[in-house]
Amino acid sequence: MDNATLYTHVRPAGGEIASVLVRDGRFAAIDGPVPDSVPRVYGGGAIMLPGLIDAHAHLDKTMYGMPWYRNEVGPRLIDKIDNERLEKRRLGIDPYRQSARQLVMSVADGTSHIRSHVDVDTDIGVAAIEGVMRARDQYRDQIDVQIVAFPQSGLLIRPGTLALMDQALRMGADVVGGLDPAGIDRDPKGHLDAIFALADKHGKPIDIHLHEAGELGAFSMQMTIDRVLALGMQGKVTLSHSFCLGMPDAQAVQGLVDGLLEAGVHIMTTGSASRPVPNVARLHAAGVVVCTGNDGMRDTWGPYGKPDMLERTMLVGLRNNFRRDDELALALHVATYGNARVMDLADYGLAPGCHADFVLVEAETVAEAIVSRPVRKLVVKRGQVVARDGRALVEAP
Amino acid sequence: MDNATLYTHVRPAGGEIASVLVRDGRFAAIDGPVPDSVPRVYGGGAIMLPGLIDAHAHLDKTMYGMPWYRNEVGPRLIDKIDNERLEKRRLGIDPYRQSARQLVMSVADGTSHIRSHVDVDTDIGVAAIEGVMRARDQYRDQIDVQIVAFPQSGLLIRPGTLALMDQALRMGADVVGGLDPAGIDRDPKGHLDAIFALADKHGKPIDIHLHEAGELGAFSMQMTIDRVLALGMQGKVTLSHSFCLGMPDAQAVQGLVDGLLEAGVHIMTTGSASRPVPNVARLHAAGVVVCTGNDGMRDTWGPYGKPDMLERTMLVGLRNNFRRDDELALALHVATYGNARVMDLADYGLAPGCHADFVLVEAETVAEAIVSRPVRKLVVKRGQVVARDGRALVEAP
Repeated sequence: MDNATLYTHVRPAGGEIASVLVRDGRFAAIDGPVPDSVPRVYGGGAIMLPGLIDAHAHLDKTMYGMPWYRNEVGPRLIDKIDNERLEKRRLGIDPYRQSARQLVMSVADGTSHIRSHVDVDTDIGVAAIEGVMRARDQYRDQIDVQIVAFPQSGLLIRPGTLALMDQALRMGADVVGGLDPAGIDRDPKGHLDAIFALADKHGKPIDIHLHEAGELGAFSMQMTIDRVLALGMQGKVTLSHSFCLGMPDAQAVQGLVDGLLEAGVHIMTTGSASRPVPNVARLHAAGVVVCTGNDGMRDTWGPYGKPDMLERTMLVGLRNNFRRDDELALALHVATYGNARVMDLADYGLAPGCHADFVLVEAETVAEAIVSRPVRKLVVKRGQVVARDGRALVEAP
Repeated sequence: MDNATLYTHVRPAGGEIASVLVRDGRFAAIDGPVPDSVPRVYGGGAIMLPGLIDAHAHLDKTMYGMPWYRNEVGPRLIDKIDNERLEKRRLGIDPYRQSARQLVMSVADGTSHIRSHVDVDTDIGVAAIEGVMRARDQYRDQIDVQIVAFPQSGLLIRPGTLALMDQALRMGADVVGGLDPAGIDRDPKGHLDAIFALADKHGKPIDIHLHEAGELGAFSMQMTIDRVLALGMQGKVTLSHSFCLGMPDAQAVQGLVDGLLEAGVHIMTTGSASRPVPNVARLHAAGVVVCTGNDGMRDTWGPYGKPDMLERTMLVGLRNNFRRDDELALALHVATYGNARVMDLADYGLAPGCHADFVLVEAETVAEAIVSRPVRKLVVKRGQVVARDGRALVEAP
């Protein structure tokens, strides 16, 4: 039995002790007969989780490994957007180098897949897309990266951006990004028409940053739902943040949830502690696919964040007042299977036949793994060890 | 110069490199002349912070070191209260052992002082008070503990509790606790009258858990303010949680803030992500003293929490949308000087003459220390090293 390894004394998904056979980069069997010639790795009773997924990152923005950025930025969204565009050049925030650093940290923390929004604007052009693609290719044996072409500085209010978005998609960006159709672009119809046209032209899914809260966000969300239904794009569109789903008007929220379900629109939430947020349990119970991610970390927007998706899972749990073990299991479901569904990943999970992307953590239960966030004992990508005891086996630039 | 140590190459409060002389358990001088005979400890450029303070703990509740508690508790506050009282006996949550464990973990994380609410009820009597006092005495060279006699299961609705509270205070509890005068005791006037009478009788300050949100909480808060003013207890009363200050009615909140300021009532917030919370920056700007703490951790109420007050500071920052370095500095101010003020600690801080309670952390800035939460390099209590590289030098039971 070539290209095989048997992981003994592991607990898949926190269940009973088992032996898990990995062969040719995939899970082959659980507790099946295995020849003595197959090499063994002793798991010591660790929990085996499927590879963690970060479904909303900004790889090109992080300042990890650079001198501390003293944040004195103004309070508005546009302050942060404008500040970042200026600081990128002043400080030399290199998209390749910085995304490579974050990828290596993510590998060390057990992340197997990342969806990263990458800035496209008339200052930087598609250079950030190129930089992240270079890092993606360099670490393709350690982690899979999906790239969203993201008009961070606005799409229609900055003429020339649409052509750059088109260029990024021709270069191979995987997803069409969007941003606050009303709040930033001041033209919700124009913004959404442009994004859906790009998606149609390139045959790509859509992922829109929707920070707009309350009634304004509800308006943009409903316009998006209408387009998805009209264009038959069910299952292909994600609305990230969606703070409007945290508004107090329960009737209005219910109407939106019904629409999201009908249109198969997915919702990404980071569990922001300072904004109104979608209710994860309510959306999940309704059948809406929920995903999560670490969002920007240690960048010109703010100093918080680690690449650790268990920490993100904890923050989602804290925000949603999840205390019971079954509630924390739901939070982890979002950070694994929910994210895989949104990213349309094939053969994800711990079942035989799935890609052998997994992480071993020492904890008594899944809930403990989330709240304790222990150092990752072992991280495996398509059957190959990529990190051990919290350290990736590859170097960052 | 006996009983002296010179800490070289440290950065007090994240400022310039300095040498700090500690003598007889107190800070003696910064960058002053020091004889060669004084032993040196090289700080390596680490930031020196004053001892971290946890101004709201529940030492008797934690289940750290016990088997994982599978949480299947109902959603209401009273569900959690009743469940805990039953589980304490069933599971053998020993107040001495568990508080000792949390104290040792707190020392390792750089905490120099803790205010702990300790349950007093007709089931457990004053046994939890005795247990925490035993742990407090055992670790008195490592950490200072203030004990709040806390009627967790209600004061007037459980006859006999008031006499037990009186007994706990005679035994030496430092603070009179209270709990939701309306929401739990269903008798706000009776509850507050009883608590203020106990405080007057024993000459002790007051710290009330006020979970009541919105108008109900505002009502209880105003009744508390009125009593403080009538009885001249300015500066002696803390209202913990105070979710009512997070209600949307800005005018009503302003009225409460004015009252808190006039009455010198302090506010404790954990920065709860799932509840409305007081606005730290607004309260601080108004002149109200704000403090913070880790609250319960890994207990029958919920699985979250570590004793790390830098992590709590981060969570307060996240909840308050603090992104700028000056905003994070305010969060740390709350977790140090704010807490010291509420606990009425004498000679707290890094200035010459203060008790030499401090922690060294390797970070570029104070903000980085908060968001990265590095392992504590060195923890010193009254001039003596009590923890090193994240490990306390004393053992827990």
